[in-house]
Amino acid sequence: MAHYRITVKYDGTKFSGYQVQPHQRTVQGVIERALAKMAKVPHIHIDGSGRTDAGVHALGQVITFDTPIDIPDRNMLAALNSMMPLDILVLECAHVPADFHARYSAVGKRYLYRVALGRYTDPLKRLYTGHYPYHVDVARIQAALPDLVGTHDFTSFAASGGQIEDKVRTIYEATCTEDKVHNELRFEFYGNGFLYNMVRIMVATALEIGNGRRDLHDFQRVLAAKDRQQARGTAPASGLYLKHVYYPGNITGATI
Amino acid sequence: MAHYRITVKYDGTKFSGYQVQPHQRTVQGVIERALAKMAKVPHIHIDGSGRTDAGVHALGQVITFDTPIDIPDRNMLAALNSMMPLDILVLECAHVPADFHARYSAVGKRYLYRVALGRYTDPLKRLYTGHYPYHVDVARIQAALPDLVGTHDFTSFAASGGQIEDKVRTIYEATCTEDKVHNELRFEFYGNGFLYNMVRIMVATALEIGNGRRDLHDFQRVLAAKDRQQARGTAPASGLYLKHVYYPGNITGATI
Repeated sequence: MAHYRITVKYDGTKFSGYQVQPHQRTVQGVIERALAKMAKVPHIHIDGSGRTDAGVHALGQVITFDTPIDIPDRNMLAALNSMMPLDILVLECAHVPADFHARYSAVGKRYLYRVALGRYTDPLKRLYTGHYPYHVDVARIQAALPDLVGTHDFTSFAASGGQIEDKVRTIYEATCTEDKVHNELRFEFYGNGFLYNMVRIMVATALEIGNGRRDLHDFQRVLAAKDRQQARGTAPASGLYLKHVYYPGNITGATI
Repeated sequence: MAHYRITVKYDGTKFSGYQVQPHQRTVQGVIERALAKMAKVPHIHIDGSGRTDAGVHALGQVITFDTPIDIPDRNMLAALNSMMPLDILVLECAHVPADFHARYSAVGKRYLYRVALGRYTDPLKRLYTGHYPYHVDVARIQAALPDLVGTHDFTSFAASGGQIEDKVRTIYEATCTEDKVHNELRFEFYGNGFLYNMVRIMVATALEIGNGRRDLHDFQRVLAAKDRQQARGTAPASGLYLKHVYYPGNITGATI
């Protein structure tokens, strides 16, 4: 058995999310079937760094798996890409130690969220951005985001129904830049972990702060409330990208 | 009856092209149904500046129509956008003289063609670019494109099966720029008219010139041959955008 790590980019539009579900096209399902076919075995299980919802994209999702096919990284990379549909691309492949696990070994994640501004949804961006048609003061958002940085109980920013008991997470970076050429905002969040829908809820709240419908330091109040009802909105899946997953050490594999 | 011109942007991915076809979702069909519904009449016919194929996008398709609904341009613009699906956006609306016709009044068109470079198709760009995975010398393409400029018989660059007898067209501009940030080429063609698939065939030939598989001045040879078999390839629909349609005069309507 060989133990591999792969890094994949995907367009989430036509997937019912990352995680396998019966009768649905999922990222996990497509990759598991390709690996099983390659190894001529009934099933190969893969572990992702975490789930992404339907419509959420990945610039660098990380996956680990075992397979009887023990070949050089560059060959596995080419073999996998020859079997992938056009909406999944394998960017990197490396043999990793047996105890390296895409989810349990991860020490941080970085998400990008793109928000298209302007009154109307741009037909050519609708699948790759959220949309905020109202007035927004970017400087206000930039002044508010540092309230999220640090170690907090993010109960107020977790979708209800989540299974996880411990809702304390640390955010290292929370930024928002304006891309005037494309008339959009780009949020980035880097932290040691994120709760279900947490980025999308933080973005929705940040936009309301930018609009003036919430106080500048409303993040502080909402965090302290530890109540999901305080944040309310969730920005759409289409604007969210899992950008990078961080691991200790520095294992380099074959890249495209 | 009021006679309007509208300018629309659309994502061609989920349309079976511009032109109405039975049991297919088309741009013309969607807009005609919206206008008929608004006017509470069985049917309203629209005239586009020309057809776009399945998967071809528009940044500025122009359409004219008559409707009994005679309201200010800005109201028609808002009403139409309230009825459009997310993959069509009406950018502009103007009352125009009765003899203004989207197709017959047009004096020129500009197309954009985006080609993603690199060995693999980018999942996030696959619906919005063509793809050329081979070596390409942009300077060679830039040196070759002026051979297309001027008045020529473009028989060699027209898809077979076209109905049009006169295949003489004038190209005013043919350019190619490299976008290094996005690792892609952007072709633009501005001319008085284009034959069926003409831009996509010119791009495919230009890429082969850039690769070195064709002589630098192969456009001259292919034009002179007046034979569709000489150009062969057709770049995919996904990279093509109808960017602008030119008309004499200067009628300004309401814009979003």
